[in-house]
Amino acid sequence: MDKVNIAEKLSQFNDYYNPRIVGELNGQYVKAVKLKGEFVWHHHDNEDELFLVIKGKLKMEFRDKIVEVMPGEFIIVPKGVEHKPVAEDEVHILLFEPASTLNTGNVENERTRKVLEKI
Amino acid sequence: MDKVNIAEKLSQFNDYYNPRIVGELNGQYVKAVKLKGEFVWHHHDNEDELFLVIKGKLKMEFRDKIVEVMPGEFIIVPKGVEHKPVAEDEVHILLFEPASTLNTGNVENERTRKVLEKI
Repeated sequence: MDKVNIAEKLSQFNDYYNPRIVGELNGQYVKAVKLKGEFVWHHHDNEDELFLVIKGKLKMEFRDKIVEVMPGEFIIVPKGVEHKPVAEDEVHILLFEPASTLNTGNVENERTRKVLEKI
Repeated sequence: MDKVNIAEKLSQFNDYYNPRIVGELNGQYVKAVKLKGEFVWHHHDNEDELFLVIKGKLKMEFRDKIVEVMPGEFIIVPKGVEHKPVAEDEVHILLFEPASTLNTGNVENERTRKVLEKI
């Protein structure tokens, strides 16, 4: 029952698209991740995902629109919905999603992270 | 799939200890709430609770310690653990918890909110 300082967690790593687990509750993980560049189009068959922006501007691309998410804002991507996170500059994010969630969803490639570090 | 601006949601109400639902995912609710004063000692039999501080200083009292949680920090209170949120001045919070979670947990009193507004 210690508190978690989000900025302190984010200061512990500098690689992109490699989420760390910073909290766990009710079968869900809280993850911290830094983004830069384009991710891959994917969806999650069974998991909704919440992206809370801490720093920078996240462009969440959907097949029919783009939503820009700023610090102090979040977006929930429902299961089954194709999306592609894009970070033109560095973006810091907090994710809330089921522990079962794979970062690349239905796609498996060099960016897939099956084992996440807890920090 | 619209984004949610946390400050904008918090600007829509001014009462205390009356959470509003601002997001839903995987059977969990995201709630925005303003606190001022002491809440009641309670626990949740089946739900872990996450408190993310947006503004102000939250004092989370446990039976054996007090944790001060500041903006940009969160604390997870595991199921079964007695706690009492205290806000000496106004505090703005984002909560993440199962949709089944009752604000006063095992206690029912004048502060219990069984039906929450979605905003």
